[in-house]
Amino acid sequence: MISTQERPAPALDRVPGAAAAAADREDLRRRVAGALTAFVDRQQARLTSVGTETGELAGALRELLGGGKRLRPAFGYWGWRGAGMPDDDRVVTAVAALELFQACAIIHDDVMDHSETRRGRPSVHRRFGRLHGVAGWRGDGDSFGTGAAILLGDLCLAWTDEMFFGSGLEAARLQRARPLFDEMRTELMGGQYLDLLEQAIGGGSVVGARRVIQYKSARYSVMRPLQLGAALAGAERPLLAGYEAYGLALGEAFQLRDDVLGVFGDPVETGKPAGDDLREGKRTVLVALAGRSSSAAQGRLLERHLGDPGLDDDGVATVREIIVATGALAEVERMIRTCTEQAVAALAASPVDPCAEVALHELAAAATVRRF
Amino acid sequence: MISTQERPAPALDRVPGAAAAAADREDLRRRVAGALTAFVDRQQARLTSVGTETGELAGALRELLGGGKRLRPAFGYWGWRGAGMPDDDRVVTAVAALELFQACAIIHDDVMDHSETRRGRPSVHRRFGRLHGVAGWRGDGDSFGTGAAILLGDLCLAWTDEMFFGSGLEAARLQRARPLFDEMRTELMGGQYLDLLEQAIGGGSVVGARRVIQYKSARYSVMRPLQLGAALAGAERPLLAGYEAYGLALGEAFQLRDDVLGVFGDPVETGKPAGDDLREGKRTVLVALAGRSSSAAQGRLLERHLGDPGLDDDGVATVREIIVATGALAEVERMIRTCTEQAVAALAASPVDPCAEVALHELAAAATVRRF
Repeated sequence: MISTQERPAPALDRVPGAAAAAADREDLRRRVAGALTAFVDRQQARLTSVGTETGELAGALRELLGGGKRLRPAFGYWGWRGAGMPDDDRVVTAVAALELFQACAIIHDDVMDHSETRRGRPSVHRRFGRLHGVAGWRGDGDSFGTGAAILLGDLCLAWTDEMFFGSGLEAARLQRARPLFDEMRTELMGGQYLDLLEQAIGGGSVVGARRVIQYKSARYSVMRPLQLGAALAGAERPLLAGYEAYGLALGEAFQLRDDVLGVFGDPVETGKPAGDDLREGKRTVLVALAGRSSSAAQGRLLERHLGDPGLDDDGVATVREIIVATGALAEVERMIRTCTEQAVAALAASPVDPCAEVALHELAAAATVRRF
Repeated sequence: MISTQERPAPALDRVPGAAAAAADREDLRRRVAGALTAFVDRQQARLTSVGTETGELAGALRELLGGGKRLRPAFGYWGWRGAGMPDDDRVVTAVAALELFQACAIIHDDVMDHSETRRGRPSVHRRFGRLHGVAGWRGDGDSFGTGAAILLGDLCLAWTDEMFFGSGLEAARLQRARPLFDEMRTELMGGQYLDLLEQAIGGGSVVGARRVIQYKSARYSVMRPLQLGAALAGAERPLLAGYEAYGLALGEAFQLRDDVLGVFGDPVETGKPAGDDLREGKRTVLVALAGRSSSAAQGRLLERHLGDPGLDDDGVATVREIIVATGALAEVERMIRTCTEQAVAALAASPVDPCAEVALHELAAAATVRRF
């Protein structure tokens, strides 16, 4: 399966120990960032030829791409390596494109949720809204911000396939990854729509919340990136199935951890004001479990506070107490542990190349850590 | 240049006369519609596997795709035929993808402009807003509508490259078209952003309005589709340059005609309430010319009425009178004629295969017709 055309780089092309793995992880993040910077530079030049006033678009994107954990590119990269392939700059470029897709999802999501901040800074639509205000332009600043954010998200989405399929990998490899690539995009948008419906209908069921997790998070953030890497490598069915089992379980664990952080997390780490998920009325598994086990009085309080944009610190504290008192928090922590164990077991049963095992184990461990 | 792998269909593979051309045009529209229906059917099945509640997304898209003049696919198709290539179902599928791109542009544009209607029916965000209201769901119906429209636009954008590159054409052909395909997407979004800025800054200059036209309309609607068809055919530089000259001139004529219709057009034909462009405050060449030649009193009236969401029929009539009295309408009609003549001359000077000449002439003639 190893083509001689791919040039192994010494830094990553060995079975890493735990210490070396951390250095490799940092190295991969740097390389992904480098690929993104080079790509955005080219796009900025192209936009400038349309009009020099477009500079703010690339500026906002650069700022957004500066943050983030680069989780999806990491899974994509290790999906490729786990199929027994050597390190390859072109694969790093291809998986870096997943950050552009994520940028589109984030930018449009923040418009849809009216989120003020992202990763500790103003969200893109707020950034452009402020630009409008500072410049004293005519018309409504919020509308201008929304318009600019919709367009920048669209650019990111168009650039995702441009970067992925322009990575320089052989056409046959890209061709094999195409169905998964298409599947991933439609799945995510479909999952986002279900999420929107779930909030509108207010179903609040644990089953409904878990289905949203599967499409918005597990498949999109873990399973599909791993499988994309494997498909580029030309991997066979057993490895793709192993990645599916590992990815679905671990992706659920990640999202459940994220939901816990959204309610109990440190704003410094989450980059969002404490309790923002509660103000948005997110129908998470954590909230659904609390609703299911709450007394009538607790239920009324939850109903009143969830989705209240003006929810203050006392309100946030009240909801937190209910989530702890009903046992919902303990239950979600149990679920995270179980999912992570399932992921690790699936990995052990898969024909994954040893060079990727340490990295994939470490990525699994990261989900179980309580960070508050 | 003609590959034997392409199967000529009897109906279109001949030099058409004017009467036959009309029948062929209708036939091409039908085939484009058929390709889109088949594609959306497949996507609906995929969305249904995410969740059966997603049916409304495909329903809204079907309705939107039912309308439209299929102008971009026509230019793409004749761009291919003009390079001497025979009729090919796979090319029809590839150029039909341009309708999905246009659907994304329309859906997101209507969100950005707060447009209530499109092609005589509720815009997509209004459609979903109404669904929310009728169902009596919780939260804000407008937010739900906006969210659903953003997601459906994103799906259309992702599906554009899926359909184009999945058309079944040889990989080498698709590879040749890729740079133009990418250019087209970035150009359009960049042009849309300039349009947004133009409205916010309220520059109102003729130069600024013409630049927006070039990127939002001429390149995107005419030049790029023609060149995409030519690139798929493997055409050389002279034909691409000829399409550029023809496309830029004709595209400008089309947009100027559209701007005139936006102010003076019959709502039955435009599918929008009379004067909607004025309420939106669109900074068209027509409006810029009127502003430039108006008296102080006329200038104040224009300033007051343009972009007023509550502009009534009397206000619309007043603006129309100013546009006529300042000579702006006559000037724009002159520009349309000049652009069309330039397009026709460019076509005559290009190495276009005779089989496409009649169709491209007819498409040019369509722009000069006054329809009010």
